[in-house]
Amino acid sequence: MTEPQRVFRRARLADLPAIVAMLADDTLGASREDATIPLNPRYTAAFDAIQQDPNQFLAVVEQDSQLAGCLQLSFIPGLSRLGQWRGQIESVRIASPFRNAGLGRAMFEWAIDQCRSQGCSLVQLTTDRARPDARRFYESLGFTASHDGMKLSL
Amino acid sequence: MTEPQRVFRRARLADLPAIVAMLADDTLGASREDATIPLNPRYTAAFDAIQQDPNQFLAVVEQDSQLAGCLQLSFIPGLSRLGQWRGQIESVRIASPFRNAGLGRAMFEWAIDQCRSQGCSLVQLTTDRARPDARRFYESLGFTASHDGMKLSL
Repeated sequence: MTEPQRVFRRARLADLPAIVAMLADDTLGASREDATIPLNPRYTAAFDAIQQDPNQFLAVVEQDSQLAGCLQLSFIPGLSRLGQWRGQIESVRIASPFRNAGLGRAMFEWAIDQCRSQGCSLVQLTTDRARPDARRFYESLGFTASHDGMKLSL
Repeated sequence: MTEPQRVFRRARLADLPAIVAMLADDTLGASREDATIPLNPRYTAAFDAIQQDPNQFLAVVEQDSQLAGCLQLSFIPGLSRLGQWRGQIESVRIASPFRNAGLGRAMFEWAIDQCRSQGCSLVQLTTDRARPDARRFYESLGFTASHDGMKLSL
């Protein structure tokens, strides 16, 4: 079996429809997103805001030259724990043809490496309790469920 | 009983020793922080990084003209949920003479207002499961513990 060729890179505006389609093709995302074309201008505004913030890194991965996944990294400076930087991972999605084949693990390993090379000493994420398998997956990567993730919709 | 006078404002470099002292004067912070003077230069470097990032807001509150508390807000742009901004609250501390007198609630109400006025439609935080009372406090503010907060130290 040939090892798949994977290329991680910063997302471009041209990737945005495919990224939004990935966000929407998800149990929880289906009711939250709007993948119709032309794209809802809220997504392009959000894309611009991400690109303008040097501490945000919206990434995609191509596998065998096809867009296969996306994730967002946020590098957050802070005073706590001797002024450590945190890396935060958000909005991870894998396109359906590429699921259950090790790509998720490769994406997280890449993301953790990015956090390390940015000088972060902690990586964090929150996972919805409605995704029961996700927590075990993150634990297998070394994450500890030490915290409650509290959300308030405004 | 007179209502305490509270002023919320952006932290200044001159506040940093008092902020670090608050971070250290805490069950979990005591072993993580270094409140010796002169300040560990990691804190000043972190302060600079926070000030240079327009999406970070390190705030302090003065009560009756004394520094009484601190918190950090991060405004995070993202594609998920129709490109919503998230407000994230981190490193909340109250100086010991001001605890258990409603200041924490006032600080969170102020922080949530800041998130709203920045256009965030979600406010999030994680709370260490070693702080059993904190979760109930956040729930009383309207937060839901819908997620697991996963951390990985590098």
